[in-house]
Amino acid sequence: MRQNLLRADNKLLNYPIREVVKIGKELEKLGHFDMIWENIGDPITAGEKMPEWIKDIVRENSITDQTFAYTDTRGYLPTRQYVLENFSNEKVCTVDDILFFNGLGEAINKVINNLPREARILVPSPTYPSHATAEAMHAGCSFISYHLDPANEWEPDLEEIENKVKYNDHVVAILVINPNNPTGRVFKRETLESIVKIAKDHDCFLIFDEIYHSMVFEETENTLLHEIIGDVPGISMKGISKDIPWPGSRCGWIEVYNAEKDEDFRGFIQMILLAKMLEVCSTTLPQMILPHVYSSPKFTTYLQTRIDKYHRRAEQAVAYFQQFPQLRVTIPGGVFYLVVELLELPRAKLSAKTKAARLYIDNLLAENDEVAEDFQFSYELMGAEGVCVVPLSGFGSRLNGFRMTLLQEDDQVFTETLEKIGRAVEAYYS
Amino acid sequence: MRQNLLRADNKLLNYPIREVVKIGKELEKLGHFDMIWENIGDPITAGEKMPEWIKDIVRENSITDQTFAYTDTRGYLPTRQYVLENFSNEKVCTVDDILFFNGLGEAINKVINNLPREARILVPSPTYPSHATAEAMHAGCSFISYHLDPANEWEPDLEEIENKVKYNDHVVAILVINPNNPTGRVFKRETLESIVKIAKDHDCFLIFDEIYHSMVFEETENTLLHEIIGDVPGISMKGISKDIPWPGSRCGWIEVYNAEKDEDFRGFIQMILLAKMLEVCSTTLPQMILPHVYSSPKFTTYLQTRIDKYHRRAEQAVAYFQQFPQLRVTIPGGVFYLVVELLELPRAKLSAKTKAARLYIDNLLAENDEVAEDFQFSYELMGAEGVCVVPLSGFGSRLNGFRMTLLQEDDQVFTETLEKIGRAVEAYYS
Amino acid sequence: MRQNLLRADNKLLNYPIREVVKIGKELEKLGHFDMIWENIGDPITAGEKMPEWIKDIVRENSITDQTFAYTDTRGYLPTRQYVLENFSNEKVCTVDDILFFNGLGEAINKVINNLPREARILVPSPTYPSHATAEAMHAGCSFISYHLDPANEWEPDLEEIENKVKYNDHVVAILVINPNNPTGRVFKRETLESIVKIAKDHDCFLIFDEIYHSMVFEETENTLLHEIIGDVPGISMKGISKDIPWPGSRCGWIEVYNAEKDEDFRGFIQMILLAKMLEVCSTTLPQMILPHVYSSPKFTTYLQTRIDKYHRRAEQAVAYFQQFPQLRVTIPGGVFYLVVELLELPRAKLSAKTKAARLYIDNLLAENDEVAEDFQFSYELMGAEGVCVVPLSGFGSRLNGFRMTLLQEDDQVFTETLEKIGRAVEAYYS
Amino acid sequence: MRQNLLRADNKLLNYPIREVVKIGKELEKLGHFDMIWENIGDPITAGEKMPEWIKDIVRENSITDQTFAYTDTRGYLPTRQYVLENFSNEKVCTVDDILFFNGLGEAINKVINNLPREARILVPSPTYPSHATAEAMHAGCSFISYHLDPANEWEPDLEEIENKVKYNDHVVAILVINPNNPTGRVFKRETLESIVKIAKDHDCFLIFDEIYHSMVFEETENTLLHEIIGDVPGISMKGISKDIPWPGSRCGWIEVYNAEKDEDFRGFIQMILLAKMLEVCSTTLPQMILPHVYSSPKFTTYLQTRIDKYHRRAEQAVAYFQQFPQLRVTIPGGVFYLVVELLELPRAKLSAKTKAARLYIDNLLAENDEVAEDFQFSYELMGAEGVCVVPLSGFGSRLNGFRMTLLQEDDQVFTETLEKIGRAVEAYYS
Repeated sequence: MRQNLLRADNKLLNYPIREVVKIGKELEKLGHFDMIWENIGDPITAGEKMPEWIKDIVRENSITDQTFAYTDTRGYLPTRQYVLENFSNEKVCTVDDILFFNGLGEAINKVINNLPREARILVPSPTYPSHATAEAMHAGCSFISYHLDPANEWEPDLEEIENKVKYNDHVVAILVINPNNPTGRVFKRETLESIVKIAKDHDCFLIFDEIYHSMVFEETENTLLHEIIGDVPGISMKGISKDIPWPGSRCGWIEVYNAEKDEDFRGFIQMILLAKMLEVCSTTLPQMILPHVYSSPKFTTYLQTRIDKYHRRAEQAVAYFQQFPQLRVTIPGGVFYLVVELLELPRAKLSAKTKAARLYIDNLLAENDEVAEDFQFSYELMGAEGVCVVPLSGFGSRLNGFRMTLLQEDDQVFTETLEKIGRAVEAYYS
Repeated sequence: MRQNLLRADNKLLNYPIREVVKIGKELEKLGHFDMIWENIGDPITAGEKMPEWIKDIVRENSITDQTFAYTDTRGYLPTRQYVLENFSNEKVCTVDDILFFNGLGEAINKVINNLPREARILVPSPTYPSHATAEAMHAGCSFISYHLDPANEWEPDLEEIENKVKYNDHVVAILVINPNNPTGRVFKRETLESIVKIAKDHDCFLIFDEIYHSMVFEETENTLLHEIIGDVPGISMKGISKDIPWPGSRCGWIEVYNAEKDEDFRGFIQMILLAKMLEVCSTTLPQMILPHVYSSPKFTTYLQTRIDKYHRRAEQAVAYFQQFPQLRVTIPGGVFYLVVELLELPRAKLSAKTKAARLYIDNLLAENDEVAEDFQFSYELMGAEGVCVVPLSGFGSRLNGFRMTLLQEDDQVFTETLEKIGRAVEAYYS
Repeated sequence: MRQNLLRADNKLLNYPIREVVKIGKELEKLGHFDMIWENIGDPITAGEKMPEWIKDIVRENSITDQTFAYTDTRGYLPTRQYVLENFSNEKVCTVDDILFFNGLGEAINKVINNLPREARILVPSPTYPSHATAEAMHAGCSFISYHLDPANEWEPDLEEIENKVKYNDHVVAILVINPNNPTGRVFKRETLESIVKIAKDHDCFLIFDEIYHSMVFEETENTLLHEIIGDVPGISMKGISKDIPWPGSRCGWIEVYNAEKDEDFRGFIQMILLAKMLEVCSTTLPQMILPHVYSSPKFTTYLQTRIDKYHRRAEQAVAYFQQFPQLRVTIPGGVFYLVVELLELPRAKLSAKTKAARLYIDNLLAENDEVAEDFQFSYELMGAEGVCVVPLSGFGSRLNGFRMTLLQEDDQVFTETLEKIGRAVEAYYS
Repeated sequence: MRQNLLRADNKLLNYPIREVVKIGKELEKLGHFDMIWENIGDPITAGEKMPEWIKDIVRENSITDQTFAYTDTRGYLPTRQYVLENFSNEKVCTVDDILFFNGLGEAINKVINNLPREARILVPSPTYPSHATAEAMHAGCSFISYHLDPANEWEPDLEEIENKVKYNDHVVAILVINPNNPTGRVFKRETLESIVKIAKDHDCFLIFDEIYHSMVFEETENTLLHEIIGDVPGISMKGISKDIPWPGSRCGWIEVYNAEKDEDFRGFIQMILLAKMLEVCSTTLPQMILPHVYSSPKFTTYLQTRIDKYHRRAEQAVAYFQQFPQLRVTIPGGVFYLVVELLELPRAKLSAKTKAARLYIDNLLAENDEVAEDFQFSYELMGAEGVCVVPLSGFGSRLNGFRMTLLQEDDQVFTETLEKIGRAVEAYYS
């Protein structure tokens, strides 16, 4: 090529948690065994079924031509109306403040990339990598973050947030993922209120990724951004892929709150809308179906059954892992993940399933002398027990640990998976 | 807000052809009439029907859980295999070189935004605004373009392309839209071969937007990029929304050619893939259905019927407009648009349907003293005859004219639409 | 012009304290009086004389051809050796770590502009505008600052510095101006040691503008960066224009400390050197003369006489201003400026010398409704009393006040100047 | 350091012609001989003397205090007035359009860096590296250039200029160095008029580096920009260091032409002025002296004597080199450099003065496999004959060759230098 085609910031664009999968696939081949993929947050892959009544709704809606046509740039109007009435709040939002995207990933990308380069978003750590990487690529340097504290049930460090906002003029927004991925934490109402207050005090706006807002366990109460935002500008991000096991729909939306309260913020939202316009509209079919699914009499029971399962799995896993002094684990309030901290994690080896697998891991470690400790553990766990989990440091965390899912449909497989991990932990630390 | 939220280049992000629609909607309300929307390239809106056999395929595929799950980041493997075998070319492409996106708009965005800021793409004029605006936003200044020549049946000015590449080191790629939107031109094979040669001579890569590759009229022959690219790196952009009247599917893909021939290019494609990964995957359902629709025995007849209609419409419209000495029009070789040039266009007024409409247009012109000549014509056409067309200058062209569609299903409405436009032209020039 | 020539960040490039001069010049013309220019830090303008013995040295050195030739990019080697031995410290610096520039302004520009855009320097407030504006232009947004506290004798707020470094990853360096312009404060050794510790703890480097290092009043002790820096990377900025009344020489230098201790820092210094190389070298003559002047037996007495005068002026002015309850003033430890805070400053008018002057000021305020409070006071002071001072907010401070010089050679004029200001203050607040 | 301190574009900042000197110094040490430094454009180094009458003027001016004070940001007013009357043209310039800088290097830096990043300046090739590197650093990619043609006496390729302007919207200015460094060419009036016309036709401005405007040989006529610019906006760069052997003065200026003719251009010049203001002013002394030197009755004779010598040297050298079929050389019209092209230059070795020198060069070539052909020749020339010249490719040229000076004061040394080079050429090509 006549000129450089690589952006100077290309090193910031990486996605370490995907690397684990690639390595897992290689090990599976070399060891001739079936990996248990505890890394993927996809209920269907974990054995759940797409309910027939939802498929029926899809099929019924495929009759009208409208389902196949373009929608408005903002999204299908009746669906936006439904979202406003059912998930949002007319006090801070109108039907025109709801914008549909092809999945939350696109929403994040559009929100972050339409800010000026020097305007930064404070993201949590651990965090969902899409947020953090998009923020880093946009800024041209490492993402900036506040910590969730495992010693305090993964609640955020409010003092750190306040300080990082107060003392860094670049910060224009605070990102909160609640209920939280990966930790499963449903944050306390007063925590969230404090964050809103920090934003208000320092003229920032709020971004709440609330994609898991329905995935809340019994006896836990979730607070939504629109309930507490008052007159602070903000964005709530939601989507259907967690409530309905339809991640392939790529159907997410943002609800813009208090757009009219601040001229700068309104101008910024207008940029997002114009950027969306260039890509015409978001996929129509899932938007058409959304109100039908959520208003189906079967929906509540269906969702509750799933939530109850995840809750059960969470309790079983937490009880199991709490036996190990090397592990720290907190009972989550929702979502379908569990984060297990590996305390004072050594570097060690486990006995791999095959010689080829052993050789493969050894080469991997030799070639790259910067493999994080918990990545090394995860390789060894895959090689020895055939369980693939995501290392916690892959979520932009300075802690060691791993995230597993609570999705497994088969009780026995789940129990076995726990035991495999437990066995690996014991051997690894010994 | 504590800091500026507006990107310095925000003025580059505009989409004038959408403005026309907004104005049309206002006029429709003020004049109490039904606008004929000749601006929208959506067959369904124009009265075509989504065939039942396609809906059946959608419904049949909604049975498997797989349809609802994530796909690979690149896209659903069997569909990529189908695309490779049926639309692409194994000589220059592999199944891993095919990447699915949520519509071509997203593909354009990802391709352009993953280049370094100083690397520029030469785009045609007139052009599809998504390409041009994305290019301008990425570069932080006006887009750079070569002209399609209405006096030469809208073939590109090869000398200009060669010069703009040769003499501008910033240019790393040439964008060709073939068959062409908006002009309907299907470029000559030797023209395209010359462009490939220019890219090769100057170490650039090629981007061919071939979304309309199937929309070619009888007796016209279309040349695909993969047939002529040789060993030059390139990207073909395709999608389903023109072949199947399913624009709401947001299902497009790119085929990367000769990725292995150039290290810089390969690194760039890798960046696109990583950027896609952050947004997980593209919508699954349309990808699942794609091979079924294209391999259906009904597909060829269905498509041919549509093409024949557009061809008929094109011939009728061209014959009609050729009567007017003020207009220049060329018979298109494909696509479902017609561009009509308005030669030596004056600024004039037409008698509007209502006083309110008149007043509205007058205000519009008074408030903005930079309204392009053909935008003014289009406002008057809407006010007087209730036909909404897209001004040619809205496609980044320095020419005056308009683009209308050839989609209208009803013969009589189509004839009337032509007559309305003809009447307006006559009155406007008189 | 065919393309925009104005940088997007052009609004950041302003220099409000120069505006005051322009306005003063206009008022002088309108009022037909002689303004007392208390804004300019130039001893000669204030009536000091360039001593004959220095002029002699200049003349003597104009004999050798070497005085007219290029020097090394870094500067004239014997002079760098002299600087190393007399102003710097071989423990942290070598002769190659001393780089001469055409004045401190150029040094600041080169240091700041050779950082990556996202690397920020924390500057004091109030501050010398060249630092702050260069930092803002480089970053593309407002400069970031820590406060000097008038209630604590203008010592910096250490907690704020620590927090702004700790909580803002963008900060790579802390700028300290010591002895301080504009406040005249000579910071306590433990304050400076704390700042070094903050830099060390957070892997930042230090920039100390020590241009006034010799301008220290009796009984005050100044601490130089090289005495306390330990092994932290840092830059000291010095120059001759304060010690010798030769600001027209444009002769400043930087001393790089501990360049070898950190690879990143060394690479950055290398960039500065390469950037200097493009501009060949700095002016030779003042470099040649420097050692001769400083080692002259007359130098110490000469300098002490000046310092004593400034000290006397400072004591007189402080004693005078302390009578006014509306003013806050601290006895400076050095430098030849005095900052007077205007507490709870109202907006008011004074009786101008002429009607034309009144009209001019009224127009000025009417045209610009964002005139800072202390700028307004300074306009009124010029119009009523013919004294030009620099508003404190022009130094990037949120406080109201003004800076005057202690340079005035004539005792009576100095006393009168104080009285003019005092009269204006009283009238303004009443 | 806590964050990256290296600008992403750091690789663009290099200065290969300085590398040659470093290598020469090493070889001199290893070979224990005295290198003939034919690389440095400093008359004093080459044995010329600073005339006593100029030194006298310097001394006489060191009497007034004004010589030591600040000047206006733009420069010392009487000197600007003198420049306007003697070097510039009141038809296109006023005294406020003349801005003094600390040398041309600073002027170039300020002019280029105050453009928006996407605005590019077309520079000649071969070129003075300060221009090209500053342009590249500013743009973040390689500089863009037009060629001077050795087959056409180094006149610029006008068609290429026209095309590179016409076909590249980024270009906002054309840089011309006339009389030319390094080629010594004084461009034909019609050539320069054509360039002005190109700028006018394409709404660009002109930058003429005319630092050598007085260094023109008998029978050659030089055309100044202000004579031919008409109403096109432009900048002439001049300085004293070539007319007076006082490069250490760092005294250059720009004359802005037709600033009032174009609002964009005026705004851009305003930015330069504001940026200058941050660095207070340029060195005063040389500005004070400038009119005295130029208006001295001794000046003309002095200058003519020097020019005649360079002319003589040029004729001798050209006559000598024309004997060699491997060399191409054109008689220059001015300046004190000669460029000799090395046609079809092989890679070869010469017999070095010492084994140590041989080993040093061999290591140099082994360590870096991208040494340009003419750099290799220059290393061998230094090793074998002890003559240091600057490789032509170091001036951003695609040609092989070298630049030597015509400054040598001693006739015999000059003749010997030619013979040393001739011997090396013959051996190298054999």
